[in-house]
This record gives sequence, structure tokens and C-alpha cells, in this order.
Amino acid sequence: MIFANASMKSTKENFLAIIDSNKVVKLESLMKSCPKDMISFIEKYNSKLQEEIHKILKDKNIPTIAREDIVLLSPIPYPRRNVFCLGKNYIEHANEIKSIPGGDNMVPKEPIYFTKLAYPCMGPEDIILSHKSFTNQLDYEVELTIIIGKKGTNIVKEEAEDYIFGYTIGNDFSVRDIQKKHIQWFKGKSMDTCCSIGPYIVSKEDIPFPPSLDISCSINGEVRQNSNTSKLIFDIPTIIHDLSKGLTLYPGDIIMTGTPAGVGLGFDPPRTLEAGDVVECKIEKIGTLRNYIEK
Amino acid sequence: MIFANASMKSTKENFLAIIDSNKVVKLESLMKSCPKDMISFIEKYNSKLQEEIHKILKDKNIPTIAREDIVLLSPIPYPRRNVFCLGKNYIEHANEIKSIPGGDNMVPKEPIYFTKLAYPCMGPEDIILSHKSFTNQLDYEVELTIIIGKKGTNIVKEEAEDYIFGYTIGNDFSVRDIQKKHIQWFKGKSMDTCCSIGPYIVSKEDIPFPPSLDISCSINGEVRQNSNTSKLIFDIPTIIHDLSKGLTLYPGDIIMTGTPAGVGLGFDPPRTLEAGDVVECKIEKIGTLRNYIEK
Repeated sequence: MIFANASMKSTKENFLAIIDSNKVVKLESLMKSCPKDMISFIEKYNSKLQEEIHKILKDKNIPTIAREDIVLLSPIPYPRRNVFCLGKNYIEHANEIKSIPGGDNMVPKEPIYFTKLAYPCMGPEDIILSHKSFTNQLDYEVELTIIIGKKGTNIVKEEAEDYIFGYTIGNDFSVRDIQKKHIQWFKGKSMDTCCSIGPYIVSKEDIPFPPSLDISCSINGEVRQNSNTSKLIFDIPTIIHDLSKGLTLYPGDIIMTGTPAGVGLGFDPPRTLEAGDVVECKIEKIGTLRNYIEK
Repeated sequence: MIFANASMKSTKENFLAIIDSNKVVKLESLMKSCPKDMISFIEKYNSKLQEEIHKILKDKNIPTIAREDIVLLSPIPYPRRNVFCLGKNYIEHANEIKSIPGGDNMVPKEPIYFTKLAYPCMGPEDIILSHKSFTNQLDYEVELTIIIGKKGTNIVKEEAEDYIFGYTIGNDFSVRDIQKKHIQWFKGKSMDTCCSIGPYIVSKEDIPFPPSLDISCSINGEVRQNSNTSKLIFDIPTIIHDLSKGLTLYPGDIIMTGTPAGVGLGFDPPRTLEAGDVVECKIEKIGTLRNYIEK
């Protein structure tokens, strides 16, 4: 199933929705006392509710909305905690960004975790600030992004999938000179609007585990990143197992799993983003997350 | 004024309070439609409300509660974003922890920012998990901690104080081997219960700016850290100015300004925390934040 945070073009009313091919169904048509935000819905979601929703979805009389009558919003516009991120989690990417300090200039032997401010978190079609008074090194990073479904600590690899609600696409926009200047990566990863996810969340049932999905990023139509999520150095069971050691994950937590080679900084000379650029992140079985760089 | 998050010992009722010498006054006795949580109160707080509260506090008929009838809770138990932290922000501390990677083994030329998970955020008298199945290197770090009062981006140094609501004491508990292992510091700073603040928030009007306050940390009564906040490498105007460049700060944001020399890792051999240790962080004009290490 595809879960979205949507807004009616006509009335600007916001609501949680299920997207079923070209039809949109309000979640409140499918369940009693429907939560108003995605995190509260994820907290409530379980296999019983999933079955109920499936059953009601087959009902020909449920009210639907045409896809073109809505716009999609960030699926989680106000995460409760910063977004968890993995650094240097594809070998070729680890090799292309040796100039970024703090990673010992090597392919990591242990996962590298940092966080990204995402309150608010941008979504599909949103404009990303260029921060041109501070940088000319705004960069893109497409990432397979996990949405946690269930509270858990010390999760074993074999049960990692149980703790996942679904997947979305993330763009871990990164300001390279600021990332370098402050040694720890946080600030360069956390400038306003530099976290975008979407266009919606695909539930884990729709994607065989662990996900082996083509992943790419294009700038103005030119493919720059192109890989497959099976090439993650630390795969999803390992990430969830290792990150949750002594650190409790909560429903609605967002984990960006790392980006493949082809970021702007990896080119010589660097090809970072410019005003007006259109950035399209694609992941097989999920879709496309498109953002525009401020003109 | 001293703002606290309190709980009645008898009824376990939680409420926001002002502590006035040995008397406790519920905030709801002092203002109409009093918010239920500290962040919402901070969002509402301004100089007009401050005056009103001051005026009503002088009224001899307002109901008060004896200090011994309440317990203090974490002033902000559920921050909306991870806690912002400064690394290596006292020269002697930067020199004592050269074995921590990611800081170029030097006194920093630019502020080092990282974040700490604090959802939930511990408070006074809380027990801190020892995480003994993962580490024997749990360490303490007393820090002067800023609570942001007003939304702001690109804040100039001269106006930095306007954006502060008040100050509290923070203990940036750090798991050293995990901090080293993952290169970026986030995970070693973010194990469950490893963020504690309190015992309450002292409003900025009570502390001359920039704060020049004695700061210390004792383990089982033995002083280990002992310095003054005037020795910060990057002072508070600089932190607020620099951190807010292109990054919007919000009311209720928590900034830990860095720890002085004397952490457990700084001793040879290291003197990190052990089961049952009592950790007391003191800052002049604020008070004492006491925590206990799980037995």
C-alpha cells in the first residue's frame, strides 16, 4: 500500500491518504478515529488494521478522489527526532568523497551515523534554499529511506523487517564546505530545507526484503547517480540491529541509508547544484522525489 | 525567575511551576490558558507576560505549594529536535581528549556541532543506564545549556541574548568507545538516557550576559571538572550567530555549549563511570543536576 500526506488542490484541506493506482482514498474513509498525522497513524498501524483497510479498499462504494485533484506533501513534515543518516555506505561513494573529513578517508569498517535536522522536513516538489550567501557547494544525495514502524531496542537482524513500516526516497542535501569546516557533519547536513523525503511511503509488504532496488538521481534530466540498494556496505538488517544497540527506535523514526557514487563533489571539477536546477531522485518500486533549487 | 516542570509527590499530578525561594507556584495560577508543556509556554512567553507574572507573584493570596511536596522533572522531557551540542569548546578539554577522532586532534578553529538524541530527555535525580553490555566507558560532561526562546535565523551576535529564554545545566553523558568506533560522534552521545538537563530553567534576566559562571562536576563527591563558562572557546553570542547561519533556531531548542577539562577519559588511566556512581553537575546561579548510574 502507498500512504501519503496529501492536500486538496481546491480547498487546501490536508489529510492522510492511500493511493491506489490513480485513485486516492482518504484514510478517514477506511478507519474509525483516524489519526491526523502520519506518525500517529504509524503508531496505530498493525496487521489487523492493515487487513481491515485492505478489505474496505475493495468496497466499490468508498469515496475516492482523482489523483490530479491533490498535491502530495512531505509524508512526515515534522519528525519527532532528527533524521538518522548513514555516511559512506556505498563503496564507490566512500572512495569519491575522500576530501570530506571525519571518515578516516577510508571505506568504513563500522557504520557511520550522523543526524540531519528535518523540522520541518521538505517533501515532493518543494523548493530547496540555495543558501548562496553561505555556499556554492550545495550537493544532492539520493537515499533509500526507512520509516520505522515499531518501538524497539537491541533488535536482532532476523527481526529487523518487523520494525519497518515502509520505505520512501530521501534527498540528503549537503552543503560541502560547511560539512568540512565544522569537522562533524551535522551542520553541513542541516541547513534549512536540506532534508527532503517522499513522494509517499510504500509499505514494506510491497518490497521484498532486503530491498534490492535500482536507485538514481538526475539533475535537469542528466543521470548523475545510478546504482542498486543491494550494494549498501551495511545492509538494512545490519543498520537496524547496530543502530538500535542501546538506542531505542520509535515509530516514525526516519533512517536514510546512505547514497551511491555520483554526488556533485565526486566530479572533478565538482558539479554541485545551481539556482534553478531540477533534482529528481528515483527508486524502483517507490517512485520519484522531485525538488527545485531556489532561483 | 525559575521555571520548572514539576510533579506533586502525593497525587503525581504534573504541572509547570515557578520556584520562588522555598515556595512553588503553579504557572496556571499566574496566567490564563496556561500551556501544558514547557515548549508551548516558551513559545507564548514575552516581556508582557513576564511583567504580568511578576506582578501576580507579588500577590500574597496566590496559592503556593511547599518545595518538599514536589519533585522536579526534566524541564523539557520531549524536545522537538535533537539537542544541539558543541564539541571541544574549552581549550584544556580539547587537549585532554585527543584520542577522540573527528576533531583533527586540535583545538578547533571553527565550532564543532553534533547532536544528541533526547527524546525522552532525562532530568534531575533520574537514573542513567550503564549500558554495561556494550561499554565500560560511560563518561560525564557538565555543560552550560541554553534554552532558545524565539525563532531566528542568521542572528547577529549583538542580538544573540534576545533569542535566549534561559539556562539550565546539562550532562552530555558520552559512551567513549562507541563515540570512537563510529567516527561521527552521534551514536556514542545518544545511547538511551544519555542526555540529562535540569533541575529547572533559570530565565536569562537572572544571569548577566554573557554568562561567566563557575561550572563543576563531582563523582561521589569528588570534584573532577572545575572551570568557568567565561573560558568557552566559542562564546554564546558566537555560537548562536554561527549555528543560526542558514539554520533556523526554534523556541525550546536546547544547545549544550561544551564541557571543561576533567572528563573520565582525560585521566590516565581513564576514570569513567561505574555502577552506582552519583554524578553532580553544578553551575553557579543555576544549581545542581544530580543523576545516578544504574546499579
